[in-house]
Amino acid sequence: MSEPAAEPAAEPGSGPGPGSEFDAETRLAGDGPPFTARITDRWSGLAGVNGGFMLALCTGALGQVLPFPDPVVVSAFFLRPGSPGIAQVTTEVVRVGKTTAFGQASLWRDGREVVRATAAFTDLSLAAERAAGRSPAYTGTAPPALPPADECLTAAPAPLAGVTLTDRLEYRPGVAPGWMTGQPSGDPTAEFWMRFRDGREPDLAALPLLVDAAAPVVLEVGAASTTIELTVHLRAHPAPGWLACRALTRHVAGGYHEEDFEIWDSAGTLVAQSRQLALVLT
Amino acid sequence: MSEPAAEPAAEPGSGPGPGSEFDAETRLAGDGPPFTARITDRWSGLAGVNGGFMLALCTGALGQVLPFPDPVVVSAFFLRPGSPGIAQVTTEVVRVGKTTAFGQASLWRDGREVVRATAAFTDLSLAAERAAGRSPAYTGTAPPALPPADECLTAAPAPLAGVTLTDRLEYRPGVAPGWMTGQPSGDPTAEFWMRFRDGREPDLAALPLLVDAAAPVVLEVGAASTTIELTVHLRAHPAPGWLACRALTRHVAGGYHEEDFEIWDSAGTLVAQSRQLALVLT
Repeated sequence: MSEPAAEPAAEPGSGPGPGSEFDAETRLAGDGPPFTARITDRWSGLAGVNGGFMLALCTGALGQVLPFPDPVVVSAFFLRPGSPGIAQVTTEVVRVGKTTAFGQASLWRDGREVVRATAAFTDLSLAAERAAGRSPAYTGTAPPALPPADECLTAAPAPLAGVTLTDRLEYRPGVAPGWMTGQPSGDPTAEFWMRFRDGREPDLAALPLLVDAAAPVVLEVGAASTTIELTVHLRAHPAPGWLACRALTRHVAGGYHEEDFEIWDSAGTLVAQSRQLALVLT
Repeated sequence: MSEPAAEPAAEPGSGPGPGSEFDAETRLAGDGPPFTARITDRWSGLAGVNGGFMLALCTGALGQVLPFPDPVVVSAFFLRPGSPGIAQVTTEVVRVGKTTAFGQASLWRDGREVVRATAAFTDLSLAAERAAGRSPAYTGTAPPALPPADECLTAAPAPLAGVTLTDRLEYRPGVAPGWMTGQPSGDPTAEFWMRFRDGREPDLAALPLLVDAAAPVVLEVGAASTTIELTVHLRAHPAPGWLACRALTRHVAGGYHEEDFEIWDSAGTLVAQSRQLALVLT
C-alpha cells in the first residue's frame, strides 16, 4: 500500500515533474479518509476528466483503508461529469473477510458526488499461489494478434478540443481507426498497444485508468456516448512493457451500448477485463 | 427497521399459492425504506440463497424509491452467503438526474450486510424512443442457435442437496451439460432456453435473478466457485415466452474466473447482458 503523501499533487497545467505523471497526480493528500486529490486538466477525454482516472483515484483511496493490497474487482457509477480542481475522496470499509475485503469510495467536487465506486480487494499473488495446481486454468481467447509495437502505426492523434489524455498515453494500433479520418469502419472493435508516454510501467493502480483511456469504439458506427457504469476485473499484476488492448462493442440498441475492454501484458497474460454501459448521445 | 409484512410472503416449503411464485416471494413489506423481505428456501443454489434472487430484492426496493421505472444497470457485491429468513433491505437515493437516477440498496440478515447493490434507473421505453432514428443500432452477435424449446432436452436435473431454484425455473439445453453426467466437456459454455415453471412471463424485475440462475459453466472445466461481484445490463423489456440464454467463461486463472451471460427474448432481442467475477473454490 502506498503511504499518504505529505506533498500535494501537481498544479493544474504544470509539467509532470520528476517521476511518473500518473503517480504524482493520483497521490492523495490528507491523513484521510477523507482524502484530497488535485485533479488537473491533464487527464481529460472528450467529456471532461476521464472516468477511469477518477476511478483510479477512488481505487487508490480504498487501497489505503483496506487490509489487502490488490483490487480484484471495481465497479463505478458516474453520477456527474468530472472537472479539474480540488476533489475529496471519501471511503467506507464495508466488510473485511479472511481473504477478501470490500470497500466503497466516492469522489466529490464542490460538495457534489461525482463518482461512486465499490470494490473488492485481495492479495492476487497469494490467491494465485493458493490456486496453483489445485484450481483448473482455462483461456478461451488469445491476446490481440498485433504486429510488434515498433511496427505498428504511431498514431499522431488529431488534436481534439480539450483532450489531454492522449498526451499522457501512447497508442499504437495495428490498423488506423476509421473514425479518425472521417471514415467510420462500421465495425466497433479496435486492437492496439498502449503505454504511458513517460515510461511508467503498468501496474494494478493504473489499470482502472487504462481500460477507459482509449477512444470509444462506437465512434466506428458513428455514435458518441457517455459512460454510466464501468466494472473492471483485475486479473493479474502486469509485467513491464507495452500492453496489448482489445476493445469491442457488440450491442448498440435502445440508446445504450456496452463496451468490453481487455488488457494483456507483455508476457501474454490477461491482466484486466472491463465492461461499461454507456448512454448514446443523440 | 420496519415491521414484517401484514400480508406475509409464502412460508418456507409452502406451495406457490395463487399467482407467480417470484412475485409473491420478492414482494417487499413495510412502508419502507427500510423494507422487509421474507426469504424462503425455495430460491437456493449450491451456495445457499441465490445471489441473483437477492439482487432482484435489492433492485425491487430501488424501484420503489427512485423516480424512474426501469433498472438499466445494476452492480452487486456479495459480502456474505445468504440464508433463508427475514431480511431487511435498506435503500439510498444517490442522485436523481433528468433521465437517469442512481440508488444503492443493501440486503441485511441478522444485522449483517449480505449484498450491496448500486444501480442506475431510467425509462427504457422513453430512451429507445429518443434514440429511434437518431442513434445508430448495431448488433455484433446473434441469439443462441437453439432448436425450438419443444425439441430441446427437458433436463430432469439430478437432485442436488439444497438446490431448489431448479424447481422454480425450467431449463432446456440444446446439448446435455457434460458435468451433469460426470463428464465435464472442458468447454465452459452453455446455451439453453429458460422460463419460470409456473408460467410467469419474464420482465425486467426477473432478469437479475435469471442471469444468475443457471449452473456455472466452469463446472465444465471441473471448477466450483462463489460469486464476488455481478453486474447486469438490462437492455430492453423482454417479450413473453421462452428466453434464449448463453453463458460463457473465457478466463479461469489465478483463482478467479469471469462468467458472461446473455438473455435474448422470444422476439430475438438481447434483453440482459451480465458479467460476474467469481472466486474459484479450492
